[in-house]
Amino acid sequence: MKARVFVSLKSTVLDPQGQTVRSALNGLGYHGIAGVRQGKFFDIALAEGVTREQAQKEIETIAHEVLANPVIEEYRVEILD
Amino acid sequence: MKARVFVSLKSTVLDPQGQTVRSALNGLGYHGIAGVRQGKFFDIALAEGVTREQAQKEIETIAHEVLANPVIEEYRVEILD
Repeated sequence: MKARVFVSLKSTVLDPQGQTVRSALNGLGYHGIAGVRQGKFFDIALAEGVTREQAQKEIETIAHEVLANPVIEEYRVEILD
Repeated sequence: MKARVFVSLKSTVLDPQGQTVRSALNGLGYHGIAGVRQGKFFDIALAEGVTREQAQKEIETIAHEVLANPVIEEYRVEILD
């Protein structure tokens, strides 16, 4: 079974990395770009024999405790196949 | 209009960052995790008046030329609303 966790800065938090990408793109002539925010994702492979319920619970815990900083980041968990 | 570009290492390319996350998770007691690969995504806001076709074309170009390194990375483009 596989899972994917998306982590991004909360929309109220400034994203200087995204701003830099946006200004670089505008500088390269891509004037249709009004804003960029960057995030990261984790493709997670689960061990054999883990049930969907266990996976959901474990991945939620991992996302909250390890992968994201809930003070400034939000996350979303997807369980695949 | 918004677009999202997902960038990840090709599956044939080693991902030491993901391996480090996996071994950290295993060390913290999450033994159900068999593998982790990390990627990044860009949430892109497009300027007013850009059509869907223009957006698709511009974002594909940007993804290929700027956001991803096609030698070692693959990317996927989603146009939203």
